[in-house]
Amino acid sequence: MRLIVPLRGVVQGRGGLFVGSLIPCCLFYFLQLYLKRRSPPDPPPSDSHLGELPRTSSLSNLFSRGSSMGRVRISARAVPVAKPTDSTYYIGLERVKTDPYDRISNKEGIIQLGLAESTLCFDLLQRWMSENLMESMMMQSDGNGEFDISSIAMYQPFEGLLELRVAFAGFMSRIMGGNVTFDPANMVITAGGTPAIEVLAFCLADHGNALLIPSPYYPGFDRDIKFRTGVELIPVHCRSSDNFTVTVSALEQALNQARKRGFKVSGILFSNPSNPVGNIVSRETLNDILRFAQEKNLHVISDEIFAGSVYGDKAFVSMAEVASSGEFDKSRVHVIYGLSKDLSIPGFRAGVIYSFHEDVVNAAKKLMRFSSVPVPVQRILISLLSDARFIEEYMAAHRGRIRDKHARFVEGLRGLGIPCAESCGGLYCWVDMRSLLTCYSEKGEVDLFEKLLSVAKINATPGTACYCIEPGWFRCCFTALADEDIPVVMERIRRLAESSR
Amino acid sequence: MRLIVPLRGVVQGRGGLFVGSLIPCCLFYFLQLYLKRRSPPDPPPSDSHLGELPRTSSLSNLFSRGSSMGRVRISARAVPVAKPTDSTYYIGLERVKTDPYDRISNKEGIIQLGLAESTLCFDLLQRWMSENLMESMMMQSDGNGEFDISSIAMYQPFEGLLELRVAFAGFMSRIMGGNVTFDPANMVITAGGTPAIEVLAFCLADHGNALLIPSPYYPGFDRDIKFRTGVELIPVHCRSSDNFTVTVSALEQALNQARKRGFKVSGILFSNPSNPVGNIVSRETLNDILRFAQEKNLHVISDEIFAGSVYGDKAFVSMAEVASSGEFDKSRVHVIYGLSKDLSIPGFRAGVIYSFHEDVVNAAKKLMRFSSVPVPVQRILISLLSDARFIEEYMAAHRGRIRDKHARFVEGLRGLGIPCAESCGGLYCWVDMRSLLTCYSEKGEVDLFEKLLSVAKINATPGTACYCIEPGWFRCCFTALADEDIPVVMERIRRLAESSR
Repeated sequence: MRLIVPLRGVVQGRGGLFVGSLIPCCLFYFLQLYLKRRSPPDPPPSDSHLGELPRTSSLSNLFSRGSSMGRVRISARAVPVAKPTDSTYYIGLERVKTDPYDRISNKEGIIQLGLAESTLCFDLLQRWMSENLMESMMMQSDGNGEFDISSIAMYQPFEGLLELRVAFAGFMSRIMGGNVTFDPANMVITAGGTPAIEVLAFCLADHGNALLIPSPYYPGFDRDIKFRTGVELIPVHCRSSDNFTVTVSALEQALNQARKRGFKVSGILFSNPSNPVGNIVSRETLNDILRFAQEKNLHVISDEIFAGSVYGDKAFVSMAEVASSGEFDKSRVHVIYGLSKDLSIPGFRAGVIYSFHEDVVNAAKKLMRFSSVPVPVQRILISLLSDARFIEEYMAAHRGRIRDKHARFVEGLRGLGIPCAESCGGLYCWVDMRSLLTCYSEKGEVDLFEKLLSVAKINATPGTACYCIEPGWFRCCFTALADEDIPVVMERIRRLAESSR
Repeated sequence: MRLIVPLRGVVQGRGGLFVGSLIPCCLFYFLQLYLKRRSPPDPPPSDSHLGELPRTSSLSNLFSRGSSMGRVRISARAVPVAKPTDSTYYIGLERVKTDPYDRISNKEGIIQLGLAESTLCFDLLQRWMSENLMESMMMQSDGNGEFDISSIAMYQPFEGLLELRVAFAGFMSRIMGGNVTFDPANMVITAGGTPAIEVLAFCLADHGNALLIPSPYYPGFDRDIKFRTGVELIPVHCRSSDNFTVTVSALEQALNQARKRGFKVSGILFSNPSNPVGNIVSRETLNDILRFAQEKNLHVISDEIFAGSVYGDKAFVSMAEVASSGEFDKSRVHVIYGLSKDLSIPGFRAGVIYSFHEDVVNAAKKLMRFSSVPVPVQRILISLLSDARFIEEYMAAHRGRIRDKHARFVEGLRGLGIPCAESCGGLYCWVDMRSLLTCYSEKGEVDLFEKLLSVAKINATPGTACYCIEPGWFRCCFTALADEDIPVVMERIRRLAESSR
């Protein structure tokens, strides 16, 4: 504001004629120079988003001024969505589709270690479904009577039937140790964990605002959050020396840096059990995070989609339990859950938003018009989650079998001299392949990813895709492998390691 | 550019000293005046969305600057979503839930004429589901073999199984007259028509851009489109004198006005058969609309979700058929379809985006991570849509029973001296209640809506909710009424009309 004082002085008759003329003349001159330098030889683009567009699109845009000749263009925000991805996470998943390994029919195909899905308890699921699928869908809400098509065909509340929310609340409480209760009124059923995280990001942060997220983090969050909501993710880098555990000082530092860069930070998002590392967040750390969030007035989103896939000695603690302790303002706490991992039914697309903030629950309920679960599937899930005996049997088997598979897989790697990070949850382990890098850099890691994919024919997710700052770490999902596949994986890695030497 | 020439002249030694100094000084002075006038007495709000916030929220925002005292706030864009609605369409739907009519158990309850759902062929659906539900879900893709849980439990492409897209293509072609074919490669399966329209709006228009839409239009579009995409809807007013049919001159006028108001118009959206009027758009008009869109380089979104619910003599023509004629650039044409209306299974959440634009298909496929249909439901739909004999029987019954119900309902109203617009499609009719208005205005119409709801205990959707500019029209959905309910509706309206006199 001081710059404009001189001319005001001139106008108000308080002198300064020279300065009052010189400054605007100079400014005007530099403005002309600037404009001249910036103006391209071609007419300037009319749309500020054009930087994102390929050349053909901006040409077609020129035709579009009322002319019938131009090819119609899509919205600027859809352009990056439509484009092929450059994340190694998705590149790997796509490559597997072109040549998937099969023990019998395609022994030389690519082995999938990139997708966190489990087939470990399909025998139990198959039995339950064979016995109960029909009945659960055709059951009346009173549990009796004849099948009535209107109970599955008609419109139902988009946020999920009350019976399903009650069943989910009971199930979540059970698998999360029994010390936490969930109120069905705070719960919204979503078509998988993916829309749950998107809707929360929409409700908690405005376009251009940011969430802090301890890294390495699940690479799918980039799409889930950035595709439509325009919310930025700011990694809070964790290190192997701490077994990739987040600390309050790291959060504080990231927050300050983000604010210096002009971001409005709306909250903290983290996975517990962590994805991709597989460790769980201790009660103390949860307390620390929530205290920090309260101090800085941030939201906390806890993604607990692997809560029932914990197989070590440490007990899982839900952020909902910590929030309910009475010590904190719990309205800032939001939990994501789903059945894709713990019940191994991603095909059913069933997730949950659990929030202590009334407005978030209200907004999420209405947004479920875009991501609701079909009523027939809701009916199946009500039966499944309410079948206490089956759930008990299933969860015990699920945990036990992950533990066994994890032990075999980690042992195989150890035999090759490849260590893993300490983990006790999730369908994956976090493998330290630094010894296989030809050079210790991001490029070295991507080279190794390519060699694993093309030479060893293994798709594992490199740490760079997870925003890990230390090169050489890979996430390997092992719960869709049969026991006899593990030696195949190890042999392929062994051969790759040998040929690299 | 001419304004900046003088000073350039001075600098380059070509004279004009006086003008070269005077112009920048004057500009600079007016800039100061402008800045001074604009600066408010209070500090300016930091968030451009604050205009949208109620006072309490902006107060809590003040607390949120690093203080631990403030209640955490949700995003500015989620605030209007979380708020209770003020649309009479949703108010009516909510009121019915508090006291729903039942022929036996709640004779004095509110009769629902606000929701476009049909129970007319539930007998046929019930029979098919009883016989085929289990088998269809458990069927292998090869149609043989034992049930394999992995065929429904695991991740599948979010845009829908190829078999389902093939089945949808065949079904849509059949119900749309057989003269149009659909390529499964241009098709994306969505969790209902609602996410289909949202995703199209996101892909075709940027935040703040607009779509033209002939009005009266389906009131749900406001939420479907505005909630998250930020795309504006600009009504193109149609009149009773034309039976609410859109014309190119009305489109042209609306486009010019919208552009004058500063909107970038990205496309035209319309329902065919029209919702709420129930008339169908002729082939000539479809040609006119597409020619106009091509001339102005606009997208065309044709919502054809009632295409199989046509019961009159006029044949339905899909915009996909017109687009495929070879006369037009079809990449601007996008069709929405779904099974909630024609197959009466809104609980199954099954919709379709059909687009001739490759980038739109690619973007929509990726966005389906938020709105995909669970695999068990996809399996049921593959069987259902592929069962040619059942579909033929069902569609014939569906059309015939709507026609009969429509005739009864319209006849009942005619007996009360209440006419309806000419219609031949949809699950509703467009009722001219002008004779019941106490004053011919928007307020008079809302008063009548309230009286219908509270006194007559009937929920009908007033024209104002559909952006109709002529007061007194109501959409009445009749396909969830039993025959014996129709006299009850008529008697209630008769009594209301009498008491109003």
